[in-house]
Parts: sequence; structure tokens; C-alpha cells
Amino acid sequence: MRYKLTVCYDGSTYHGFQRQTNLITIQGEIEKALSSIFFEEIKIASAGRTDAMVHAVGQVIHFDSDKAIPKENLRRLINKHLYPHIYIKQVEYVDDTFHARISAKAKEYRYLVSLGEFDPFKARYMAFWKKNVDINAIKEGMKYFIGEHDFKTFSKNKKITDTVREISEFRLEQKDNLLTFIIIGDGFMHNMVRIMMGVLRRIGEGKLKPEKVIELLEGQNRRLAPYTENPSGLYLYKVYY
Amino acid sequence: MRYKLTVCYDGSTYHGFQRQTNLITIQGEIEKALSSIFFEEIKIASAGRTDAMVHAVGQVIHFDSDKAIPKENLRRLINKHLYPHIYIKQVEYVDDTFHARISAKAKEYRYLVSLGEFDPFKARYMAFWKKNVDINAIKEGMKYFIGEHDFKTFSKNKKITDTVREISEFRLEQKDNLLTFIIIGDGFMHNMVRIMMGVLRRIGEGKLKPEKVIELLEGQNRRLAPYTENPSGLYLYKVYY
Repeated sequence: MRYKLTVCYDGSTYHGFQRQTNLITIQGEIEKALSSIFFEEIKIASAGRTDAMVHAVGQVIHFDSDKAIPKENLRRLINKHLYPHIYIKQVEYVDDTFHARISAKAKEYRYLVSLGEFDPFKARYMAFWKKNVDINAIKEGMKYFIGEHDFKTFSKNKKITDTVREISEFRLEQKDNLLTFIIIGDGFMHNMVRIMMGVLRRIGEGKLKPEKVIELLEGQNRRLAPYTENPSGLYLYKVYY
Repeated sequence: MRYKLTVCYDGSTYHGFQRQTNLITIQGEIEKALSSIFFEEIKIASAGRTDAMVHAVGQVIHFDSDKAIPKENLRRLINKHLYPHIYIKQVEYVDDTFHARISAKAKEYRYLVSLGEFDPFKARYMAFWKKNVDINAIKEGMKYFIGEHDFKTFSKNKKITDTVREISEFRLEQKDNLLTFIIIGDGFMHNMVRIMMGVLRRIGEGKLKPEKVIELLEGQNRRLAPYTENPSGLYLYKVYY
């Protein structure tokens, strides 16, 4: 039997998603909970990893077991184990052609920014930018990211050979002091969104021109954009299948 | 020179306010920051201690030093040290008759409760109660706490001899699924608000009658109310001088 789980987590105190010996991670906690519920060693596959302090509203994982546990019972049991910082929103049975990562058609990330006064109760959940950033310049910069590009400049991982990705949507919603960046694409490399946000913040501060994005994409070299924005603002929001 | 600081903190990952050897506490972090700024050992006094995972919006502390540092500079310097979970809102110079605890006339605590679906992004900052709790019964129970009473039943600390306290205000505001309990009194003993909230939740669930509060106050015995509600909902909101 293959189980598909939709997972929400406050990543602020975890050492990222990926299992690590002796460190508390999202994957480690979920596998521990499932293994104790199923009485067997369960290994999960995820739609993608998230870095330390990065959150998820709709991460997706799958795993296999011979045991059939009713969906709502399983959901309740796991949530008891994972309380309070990881929360399973949905349990589904899927056929074994489904794979959390390989079947994913697109992913949506969101990045939250406050332009208001620093607030320690929001520090885990958003970045704080200067209140007078130029929103129009940021929006102009965002446009250059849309479409299919080689994102080599925007990848931390030097070993990846195929660095072409397609961004199908990239928009900015503003409500009072809160900026929500919404980005949908067919794939994101390690730190890609955070590097993009680092460039956009500097565009907003007038340190880079919006057209600089074109140059950075064409340059295909990480050293051109040595910026990695605060992980606290980043959410893996949804995985599209 | 005596300095007065108004302090805000997300207590969710600290071992409470009070300094403890080898554990990260609010007092420990603030004293470390101040000692490194003033180049001398600084010890602080606070309006009151808060438990592990309890927050503050307006905790007040004071300390002395021969060195005069301009208020806004000091605020900026400390906040760099304490970033991001502790935040100094205000720095004032006070004369040495001021004492953060002894001069306090009253304190306001707030307790936040969600009646909505569990949300891991709110878990550090509020309690989650069943959505169908009886708000009118809770409000009736709250009334019996107002005024001067012996709160011995509502104190964790058995050594305290004077357990009479006056609650001048206790009200409940509701906005959608969010309940905000606002309580102002001349003093609060260890766990007092959390024990009171434990009783009120049970009144809301129909497990205790509102008039039970009268009996608990008269009983003067902690064993009558062995309830300590979730610390995550509790905020030291303001200290009145």
C-alpha cells in the first residue's frame, strides 16, 4: 500500500527536512512517528527538501507499508506523535505509480516579508525589509524571472548539470505592511528562491537595477549573486500533481 | 545610573525567564548582552519571572551601571545581541528609587486561545480549546475571580504565606475563533493564571460549574485545582507603575 501525506510544519527549530544523524529534522521526526505506528521501519520520500528554518504549508510525502490503517485514524495517530510543530493535514491512499517527487508537475513557494517594525513574534515566519523599498522596481525585476531560463546563477549546488527551470508564475501581493511573493515553477534548485529574493531585496533598496536580473541569468555563475535571503520567510506552499 | 528596559520576547524556546546554569533563559541572554556592552558584569531585576514557553509583550527590567550610554544607541546595541527572539522596545533612565518588581502597582497578563482547527504556526503562541466551549459559563466563572481573594488554591508555590491578591479586571474578548483573556491584578503567584485558565477551560467544557470557583477560592488548597494550562497562550502584557 502506498500512502500520500500532505504535511504542514513550522521549520523554525528543525535542522531542515532531510534526515541527519543526531540532529532533529522533519524527515527524521516523521519517520520515527510512522515507524512506531506501523511497527516496522518506514522510510519516506518527499516532493522536495526544505532548508533549516524553512516552513511548509503543503509539503507532500509518500511511503509504503503492507499494513492498512484507516486514513483518519492514521492522521490522528501521527499528529499525536508530531505535536505541535509538524501537522499532517491529509492522508490519502495512492497507487504505486505515484511518487511524491517524480510525479510533481510544479511547486509553489511563498516568501513573506514585513515592511513594519521588527516584531519578535513574527521573526520565525517572515523576513523584515526596510519600509521604503521600491515595490515597482521589485515587480519589474520579478518579471525577468518568468519563463524558461538557465538558473545556474541561482543555484547553491554546483554539481547539478541541468539548471534550466521554468517559472510559470511570479507575483507579489501586498496587504498593509505584509508582502507575499508567490512563485510557481516546474522545479527549484537548492537555495534558488532565497537567492532570487536576495537579488529582489537589493533591487528594492536601489542597490541593483531591475534589469540586472537579465545579466545574472545570462551570466550563469553563482558568484554573480552571492545573496541568500533569510530562510524564515520561505514556505513550500503547494505541490501540484 | 539606573536603566529601565521594556522587553518583548517569544518565550517558546527558552527555559523560562530566570537565569539557570547551562540553560538558555531570557534573563541569562539579557545579562550576557548587557555585560558585553557595558564591559562589566550586569545583573538585572525584573517585574516578575515567566515560566518556560511563556511570552512577554511588556516585561520590565532594571539594572545599574556607572556608564552612561545614550538610550537609542543602547537599544540598538542590545537588540543586535538579542536578535531575533528577544526585543527591547524601550530604554529609559530612572532614578534609583525605581525597582522593576517592588515599584510595580499592577500587572496585566493575557491568555490567547484559539477555537479553530489546530495550526502548527500558531502552536507557540496560543492554546487550542474545543470549538464548542460555553463562553457564557466561562464568563460567569471569571466574575468570581474579580476582587480580593485568597488565591492559595491557585498557587504552585507552597512556601508563600501571603496568598491574598486582588484582581481588578478580568475580561474576555472574542474575535472570530480567537479568545483573548485580559487579567489585571496587584500580583500573581507562580502558575496562578495558568491554574485559573485550567479551571475556566473545564467550566467551558461543562466539567465544572461556574460557581465551583467560589468553592476553590474558599478551599485554599492547591490539590482542589490540579490543573496547569498550556504556557504557550500566556503573555506578561504590561506592568503598571
